[in-house]
Amino acid sequence: MNLSKICKSVSFLAMLLFVVLACKNNEDSKTNNSNALTDASHPSLILTAQGVKDIRANLGLIPIFDKTLEETKEVVDTEITNGINVPIPKDYSGGYTHERHKKNFVFMQKAGVLYQILNDETYANYVKDMLFAYKDLYPTLPVHPQPRSYARGKLFWQCLNDSNWLVYTSQAYDCIYDFLSETERADLEDNLFKPFANFISTGNPQFFNRVHNHSTWGSVAVGMIALVMEDDSLLNRALYGIKNLKMDPNMKDNDGGFINKDGKAGFYANLEEPFSPDGYYTEGPYYQRYASYPFLIFAQALQNKKSELGVFKFKDSVLLKSVNALINLTDADGEFFLLNDSQKGMSYYNSALVSAVDIAYQFGGKNPELLSIAEKQNKVTLDDAGLSVALGLKAREAKPFEKKSIELSDGPNGKQGAVGILRSNPLEVVFKYTSHGLSHGHFDKLSFAMFDNGDEVLQDYGLARYVNIEQKGGGNYLKENKTWAKQTIAHNTLVQNEKSHFSGKYGIGSKYHSNSYVFNVSNDSIQVASAKEENAYPGTKMHRTMAIIHDKSLGNPYVLDIMRVQSINSNQYDLPFYYLGQIMQTSFEYNKLSQPTILGGDYGYQHLYKEASAVANGDNITLNWLNKNKFYSITSETDASDQIILARIGANDPEYNLRNEPTLILRKTNAKNALFVSTIESHGTYSPVSELAINAYSNIENITTVYNATDYTAVKITLKNNTVKLFIISNENNDENQQHNLEVEDQLINWTGVFTLVNLN
Amino acid sequence: MNLSKICKSVSFLAMLLFVVLACKNNEDSKTNNSNALTDASHPSLILTAQGVKDIRANLGLIPIFDKTLEETKEVVDTEITNGINVPIPKDYSGGYTHERHKKNFVFMQKAGVLYQILNDETYANYVKDMLFAYKDLYPTLPVHPQPRSYARGKLFWQCLNDSNWLVYTSQAYDCIYDFLSETERADLEDNLFKPFANFISTGNPQFFNRVHNHSTWGSVAVGMIALVMEDDSLLNRALYGIKNLKMDPNMKDNDGGFINKDGKAGFYANLEEPFSPDGYYTEGPYYQRYASYPFLIFAQALQNKKSELGVFKFKDSVLLKSVNALINLTDADGEFFLLNDSQKGMSYYNSALVSAVDIAYQFGGKNPELLSIAEKQNKVTLDDAGLSVALGLKAREAKPFEKKSIELSDGPNGKQGAVGILRSNPLEVVFKYTSHGLSHGHFDKLSFAMFDNGDEVLQDYGLARYVNIEQKGGGNYLKENKTWAKQTIAHNTLVQNEKSHFSGKYGIGSKYHSNSYVFNVSNDSIQVASAKEENAYPGTKMHRTMAIIHDKSLGNPYVLDIMRVQSINSNQYDLPFYYLGQIMQTSFEYNKLSQPTILGGDYGYQHLYKEASAVANGDNITLNWLNKNKFYSITSETDASDQIILARIGANDPEYNLRNEPTLILRKTNAKNALFVSTIESHGTYSPVSELAINAYSNIENITTVYNATDYTAVKITLKNNTVKLFIISNENNDENQQHNLEVEDQLINWTGVFTLVNLN
Repeated sequence: MNLSKICKSVSFLAMLLFVVLACKNNEDSKTNNSNALTDASHPSLILTAQGVKDIRANLGLIPIFDKTLEETKEVVDTEITNGINVPIPKDYSGGYTHERHKKNFVFMQKAGVLYQILNDETYANYVKDMLFAYKDLYPTLPVHPQPRSYARGKLFWQCLNDSNWLVYTSQAYDCIYDFLSETERADLEDNLFKPFANFISTGNPQFFNRVHNHSTWGSVAVGMIALVMEDDSLLNRALYGIKNLKMDPNMKDNDGGFINKDGKAGFYANLEEPFSPDGYYTEGPYYQRYASYPFLIFAQALQNKKSELGVFKFKDSVLLKSVNALINLTDADGEFFLLNDSQKGMSYYNSALVSAVDIAYQFGGKNPELLSIAEKQNKVTLDDAGLSVALGLKAREAKPFEKKSIELSDGPNGKQGAVGILRSNPLEVVFKYTSHGLSHGHFDKLSFAMFDNGDEVLQDYGLARYVNIEQKGGGNYLKENKTWAKQTIAHNTLVQNEKSHFSGKYGIGSKYHSNSYVFNVSNDSIQVASAKEENAYPGTKMHRTMAIIHDKSLGNPYVLDIMRVQSINSNQYDLPFYYLGQIMQTSFEYNKLSQPTILGGDYGYQHLYKEASAVANGDNITLNWLNKNKFYSITSETDASDQIILARIGANDPEYNLRNEPTLILRKTNAKNALFVSTIESHGTYSPVSELAINAYSNIENITTVYNATDYTAVKITLKNNTVKLFIISNENNDENQQHNLEVEDQLINWTGVFTLVNLN
Repeated sequence: MNLSKICKSVSFLAMLLFVVLACKNNEDSKTNNSNALTDASHPSLILTAQGVKDIRANLGLIPIFDKTLEETKEVVDTEITNGINVPIPKDYSGGYTHERHKKNFVFMQKAGVLYQILNDETYANYVKDMLFAYKDLYPTLPVHPQPRSYARGKLFWQCLNDSNWLVYTSQAYDCIYDFLSETERADLEDNLFKPFANFISTGNPQFFNRVHNHSTWGSVAVGMIALVMEDDSLLNRALYGIKNLKMDPNMKDNDGGFINKDGKAGFYANLEEPFSPDGYYTEGPYYQRYASYPFLIFAQALQNKKSELGVFKFKDSVLLKSVNALINLTDADGEFFLLNDSQKGMSYYNSALVSAVDIAYQFGGKNPELLSIAEKQNKVTLDDAGLSVALGLKAREAKPFEKKSIELSDGPNGKQGAVGILRSNPLEVVFKYTSHGLSHGHFDKLSFAMFDNGDEVLQDYGLARYVNIEQKGGGNYLKENKTWAKQTIAHNTLVQNEKSHFSGKYGIGSKYHSNSYVFNVSNDSIQVASAKEENAYPGTKMHRTMAIIHDKSLGNPYVLDIMRVQSINSNQYDLPFYYLGQIMQTSFEYNKLSQPTILGGDYGYQHLYKEASAVANGDNITLNWLNKNKFYSITSETDASDQIILARIGANDPEYNLRNEPTLILRKTNAKNALFVSTIESHGTYSPVSELAINAYSNIENITTVYNATDYTAVKITLKNNTVKLFIISNENNDENQQHNLEVEDQLINWTGVFTLVNLN
């Protein structure tokens, strides 16, 4: 910390002391009427009158709270100096007017909070002036000039962003409610807030009346302002949707998602439908993160204002569970796994997660594991919940949040498949056998990704979008999201006849889900997630089993992947592995093309360059590669005449929208039934400083399928250190108590349960 | 730190205390003859008798020294437990026998030091047993079975590694010298050390008698063992080379470098020739790092044993200057700039640099700035020099090592060009106008690279080799090093008619060097490095000027790049910019090919895929890209009909040896004279957590050449914030005191010196 920074901190602390003393004096004399706490009914959403008292009493005493407060004050003070700017709306996201209005609502919210905590009218006046500027502008606005959205807003190009504005602004209004005169409030409510809430609800039922992260924001926006204004009619609309509305069930949004197939709407429906009983949000963690802010901030406000509704107890406390689920859906660095449309790098350091963690801590029994996440976030919300967390941290109550192997069910009743996460330090395998995931879903049944100490090793591509980077299509979804990122071949899963699952049709895919077959992580030596998909290709059944085997004779655990396919027809099957890094060596000879050719015509194949190929001779093949100074190997069993394709993303990409990353594709042709068996290892390291390569080669000597029939599949794994293991799975009976016996390799193996791992030496 | 780690540390400290007390007792009673310090003449290379006393007296008192000692003890103890293994030599680097022998010499050296410091005979016996195992093996060995080297060793595939062995082993021998009986010493010297030293010198004169990093290691190996054995004849051979040797001056090594064109040899010649008076090593920092260990360790030994030679004063203290030069040749993360053959990621955290920094501190007047580097390294050498550094750190004497803009001359007399480094936080520009750089040199006159806060933004490719990764060609240079990495088109500099500089011929390139024209960094607003190259293409003169302009109206500085070419013939000129990252936007429309084509037939062009192209209309073109969450732009002036090529490395790469990274190539055809003017900016940031893009676009509105003739070149730069600047450089007169005046843009500009930067508004 340099001197000017220290001076700043010292003066900030002196200022806090002044506030504390002034407030204390206030309370003692009870004569000062400029104090923001005169009316106990405001603030009441995220700050409460009692909360503000407690916060003020603790100023200067809790480092993490003071630090967040100081940072917030710094940015808001700078904004106040820059002056208020409420431009006529014009741009898409990334453009000036979009970003300006976005900043405005963020800073209004912060300024409102600062007014309450620091009791400094500068902040109240900033919010007030901004609100009146909006009140003057809003009634004059047509719908936003940019036409791309199915639900155009007024301040922004889509109602979604208008709803963001209202969710934040409601909090600011709540904070300065008592600072305003009754006339001023009436003016704002009649000319800004009510018309605003009406426009995004009754004015845009296709946006508001549905189950989707968009409508979650819409409901919460209307609900938050309803709570401040104490408008029960609006609150009912927020909670239960627009009543008696007739909507076309086949209407779709820009992403191709159905608007409202079954007539459900409102906050409760949005809470009921997309969350599974385990708290998994069907769109995936990237969108759960986005939706978690409105869900939790509104729940907090409802709890504070209408505790009789018991919102946190709804659906067996699903909101609290959802925060735990979300943290479990992050890698070792806290970054979200990429399920469905997801931008890489989003993590629990996002401000929505700071709110989520603090609110879940405050209203969910003060789970000390959440404190360790808050500690990493190194900031708290400037409200009652944040104060709780800060006090918990100060009292050193934090315990490590231990992310373990976990299966999170999907679907409102938890009956629409699941995500299976296998963890064995340093590996994490994310195996997806969920439902489609609404309009942000990908056609990637039984796909997986593998992480090594937080680094993606076998990647999920994520979305084809550069969020808020205006240069790239206004920061919106790129056309390659549909033609590439959502297609099956963009994922580490099976493609039949070069067509995506469900022919890439959302209308079909959203009717089905995969099914969990077994998820058993009770034994650290062999953790198994296994699932089946029988609808992606009519007439074809897929059964994939992923295991992490932790063999004590090796330094690191490794992954076993068995994809078993049965079909009534002869097909071509492609199984890609999107390894990240540079090929070091292959056990097979390949023919590198002098010029890449395009791999196929449609379903994402048109975006892959074929760079090299080989024909297998029936032996195992191994691809050994280096990524971020670690050595990895994938070893696969092959049949003679299997094709091996080395390809790279980037064809038919006229605007450089795609990342040119590599893949290995295993291809079987003219097959009804097929079995792909592979191991994936992280086995070694390289240091560019010492230039030492350690354990650069695979530990696997051989993998062989020794039995494969309707009843069982058995794979023998021989390590270079001469350890031999046999993995057997029962293919049709997933009763954990069933006894099995099978003769393989001249041995009779007996076991109880769905699978077993036996030492053969 | 976990509990077991704490317990370990506690017991280590207790052990140190025991050593300190035991030694104290020793000194008091003077009766114990097992103390390693009985004979004051050993150790005497890197440890001295007095040094050992001082170290023992300070044990447990200096954290950084104790930490290094503990780490060293831990690894050596493990090795001792594993037992001694001296296999019959068989493998290339990366293979088992190579790595085992390498470990052996490293651990012998460490064990010798531990014996001296901890006075524990376990370590002496380990070294002794290992030495006798080598003594039994060595005389039985033929030359190494692997045939690739021009100078095959016996323990290793090349004499270079045998020399490494002897440099380290000499230190171990010195440490246990007095522990051995006279008979044992005679046995080792007669049957191991002398034959070993002879084999790598008189037995391989093509390796030993030259000026090259190989022969530096050879001379030092012979010199180190000579010092221990007090063998003056061997010492003279080490210092001055093999006398009266006739060698073919046209002989070349495996890298195509001349073995010995001018008959120079020995340690002093190796010190005299490759180092410039500024301490720049002509092979570049990657090899300087490699050579710095033998240079400095031997200088330290010579100083301790033969202080009358005054080795550190040689050539105006060039060895000490070289350490400063080397640190200045690192980026913000301490990683070496990539000049000539260099592997990315090598840094001053390498153990050779720990030695270099500690020795330079000890013998170079205890420069407190070196302490700050030692502090980052967080380890010290376990010898007298390391103790000095540890004591300096303990006394809090460290001062920041401030890397500034600097020009480092090349050539024995500093007259063979230079490297110009321009720094303006966060940018660093490395501009190369040196001599060829011996056999590791690249054909890249007037090339440059740009770094942003330690991240390479416009890259130098470096070498085509995966050092010590056996899977990749035994860890040795790959053929693509010659066909790609050394070629001109692989660098950010001018290529004429798709041929490399000097036709890619080392014999020609090594005769010439570029010349510094002006290097002036006295004004933070405009720092300039300018240089000329007139031999790379006969009949063509190249003059490149690189400037960092720090305009206070912008957040960040930007780079101005002017490449001026004059030829007597009509040529095609290509100027590539190897940007790293993903294209966000271009100001020009390009035609992306449906399938990449190969850009050319030879000189590295055969390794480039052409992906897209455009024809310029005479306006500026801008390429805007994103790398590691920062936004960059390159803006270039074009002539109508200039071609713009977007290409990617990777063609004709049958074994995936190359990295598939992109480049922008500006091409002018049918031109005698040409002028390329560009700006390069780091202007914005992106956060995947907040999803905010800040300053995503270039700040440059326009760049225009307003004057270009024999005498001057003038470029007008207009920023989007309406600032207008004019940069003028005198092309023929580089007298810093010359007065100039020029009428441009209807203004008469007067200035003194080679260039000026004028505000036009």
